[in-house]
Amino acid sequence: MTVIRLLLAYDGTSFRGWARQPRVRTVQGVIEEALGRMLGEVPKPSVAGRTDAGVHALGQVASFVAPGGADPERIQRGLNGILGPEVVVREAAVAPDRFNARHSATGREYVYRIRTALVPDPFTARFVWHHPGALRMVPMRRASRLLTGEHDFASFCRAPRTPASTVRRLRRLAVATSHEEVTIRAMADSFLHQMVRSIVGTLVAVGEDRIEPEAMPGILAGRDRSAAGQIAPSHGLTLVRVIYGRRLR
Amino acid sequence: MTVIRLLLAYDGTSFRGWARQPRVRTVQGVIEEALGRMLGEVPKPSVAGRTDAGVHALGQVASFVAPGGADPERIQRGLNGILGPEVVVREAAVAPDRFNARHSATGREYVYRIRTALVPDPFTARFVWHHPGALRMVPMRRASRLLTGEHDFASFCRAPRTPASTVRRLRRLAVATSHEEVTIRAMADSFLHQMVRSIVGTLVAVGEDRIEPEAMPGILAGRDRSAAGQIAPSHGLTLVRVIYGRRLR
Repeated sequence: MTVIRLLLAYDGTSFRGWARQPRVRTVQGVIEEALGRMLGEVPKPSVAGRTDAGVHALGQVASFVAPGGADPERIQRGLNGILGPEVVVREAAVAPDRFNARHSATGREYVYRIRTALVPDPFTARFVWHHPGALRMVPMRRASRLLTGEHDFASFCRAPRTPASTVRRLRRLAVATSHEEVTIRAMADSFLHQMVRSIVGTLVAVGEDRIEPEAMPGILAGRDRSAAGQIAPSHGLTLVRVIYGRRLR
Repeated sequence: MTVIRLLLAYDGTSFRGWARQPRVRTVQGVIEEALGRMLGEVPKPSVAGRTDAGVHALGQVASFVAPGGADPERIQRGLNGILGPEVVVREAAVAPDRFNARHSATGREYVYRIRTALVPDPFTARFVWHHPGALRMVPMRRASRLLTGEHDFASFCRAPRTPASTVRRLRRLAVATSHEEVTIRAMADSFLHQMVRSIVGTLVAVGEDRIEPEAMPGILAGRDRSAAGQIAPSHGLTLVRVIYGRRLR
């Protein structure tokens, strides 16, 4: 028995997200199928970020338990041969036995890209939300500072199916701009469902002067999805990095 | 009667090239159809670079004769609404009456991108040829210098259907590299069919030590397609710029 850790990148455009579901194409589904072809039946992989339909990954991490002596390099070559370039194994390695891509992760970092130029760009259209018109950086940054830290983010997520804590610690929320593109970078121990896209939609409303930055504490306190801005579309979002404690890096 | 000039970008992946053909999807075809919907019948547009199937454009130029008083801004908005983000009008303007996108052009510049990293990249896969393994820059640059200038490029093109001169003046052929990507930039008054991809295939063979740089003059003199390297795939190629004389800029 060997725990294999995969560092994955994928173009999420043609997937209904990570998680396996019957009768639709998902990233987990195609990876499980390819692994099955190569290694026979393997247990369900664990994943650090269960990305939604249309969301991309540059630094997703998955792990699974393979038969003893499984060769990570052969697994990487095999998966890339079957799945590339849409889904790519950037690295594959043997991990410590106790490593689990989801439970061992201590942080996740997402980047959301917005093109503000008047005309779309065919070369980035799959990965960047085209939202023409300038966004005001100063109020967006002020709002992002007010959202950073530990809060109840119930207003910034899809209602969970089962009651669970909606408190999260947002460690970083940075708004940058260059070449008619606005980039929002969010890092947290973990995120609620649709949390980054809800935050992005709200920050865009702030950047358009439709919501005041000072409204953030009230939106958080309201614990009501309708108080925040609209959810930004999935295709602008990319999981860029998963963080692990030093001993599991 | 007004001559309209369009600056176009497109993702060529899903097109059988620029030129209209019956029963297949081409860039000219979708543009003509969209223009027809907006303006009624318009004469066939002229284009600076008749890109092949799968080839992209960042700075393609097309022109057509529109009914008098046609509004370029409205044409741009209309076309982008119908065709974007796959085909995008970056700029639209009224041009001098004698302007013709093809005949007025004095230069064309193409960029060919090659990813040399071992694993593919899902984010650039549509626009960059994944050719894993390092390429040797010094011999590639030496070969590119030997190809620059006015030569008979019969060895570097698909045989023309009708006899025509295969002499062209290659004004610039530059090989650059950064971040596991090799970029080949080619500029000429005009190019023969598949000329850039033939040159790229040959330069890659040089970068892999399969052809000596010093073989270039002999390959040119041979006037024989089989003497050069294989044709590089179309999806790595992008028409980036068309050059016009000062009076028609």
